Amino acid sequence: MPPGDTHPRHVCSRCGEIHYLNPKIVTGCIPIWEDKVLLCRRAIEPRSGYWTLPAGFMENGESTQEGAVRETLEEANARVRIQGLYTLFNLPHIDQVYLLFRGQLLDLDFSPGPESSEVALFAEGEIPWEALAFPVVKETLEFYFDDRRKGRFHSRVGDIHRGTGGLGDYRMRLLMEED
Amino acid sequence: MPPGDTHPRHVCSRCGEIHYLNPKIVTGCIPIWEDKVLLCRRAIEPRSGYWTLPAGFMENGESTQEGAVRETLEEANARVRIQGLYTLFNLPHIDQVYLLFRGQLLDLDFSPGPESSEVALFAEGEIPWEALAFPVVKETLEFYFDDRRKGRFHSRVGDIHRGTGGLGDYRMRLLMEED
Repeated sequence: MPPGDTHPRHVCSRCGEIHYLNPKIVTGCIPIWEDKVLLCRRAIEPRSGYWTLPAGFMENGESTQEGAVRETLEEANARVRIQGLYTLFNLPHIDQVYLLFRGQLLDLDFSPGPESSEVALFAEGEIPWEALAFPVVKETLEFYFDDRRKGRFHSRVGDIHRGTGGLGDYRMRLLMEED
Repeated sequence: MPPGDTHPRHVCSRCGEIHYLNPKIVTGCIPIWEDKVLLCRRAIEPRSGYWTLPAGFMENGESTQEGAVRETLEEANARVRIQGLYTLFNLPHIDQVYLLFRGQLLDLDFSPGPESSEVALFAEGEIPWEALAFPVVKETLEFYFDDRRKGRFHSRVGDIHRGTGGLGDYRMRLLMEED
């Protein structure tokens, strides 16, 4: 633990530089076209073969929205206009914070990028609920279709805590917004 | 650049491990007591002597809200209940993402932590606007008092781009939310 610090850190045994390990941001979006959303089928682990929203690690030098646009282009060769932050999910067990924006798909000229095996649009009734890659994707899509039925989108902050079972064993807790 | 990657990375010349550099999250809050907000006078660089909202680097293993509560306790010895995400600011020139929540101060038993020289409550007319530490603090407080006058708080996503002048030389661009 460096002097004055409150946490143990990784310190280089050669030069003494402290390598801080902080949570990483995963940024992405819900690409929307009329009543459908675009999903990508993962061609890589983890969860290869399962469907997800385009998202990935935010890079230095970009904004969260620019990262979401870049990931959508990389994974689905698709262009979106970002419309607003929709969900923020804390995943403290893996030190990640997911930021998912709503995005308007600008055209229908999309195709799988190198990390996807398939890219397709799904109406609510067509969503492969049992074949979604991650809890954040399932929770975000449920909120999205629910809000759309009610005619108003509002952003949410939630925590996802994993149980000891498989990927389906988790607990989601929403931050209750107060005025 | 590691094979299959799209960006150059720091690779350890000893063991080959890739050290990814990703943006860091700074998490904090606006601690609110009736018509006042709590500010901390910084006792450390950068911007020592200037006033700020309690905020700091998010740590592994915690949520963004837990980080905001922890920073408020560390910097102001103050306890808050987090009420909702208020502003997300991208600072791409320094690879940071600021998350500032609204927080209800639970009692008036606060005092400067080791990184603060002074902690005090300010009504809107008392805010030391010319002595605020960072653009994100000024922008967030302006939104806060504006929303309060209008009787409704709504969260915002913005980018801050620095000019070539001093700290006051910056440009803030808000993401326009669309329904």
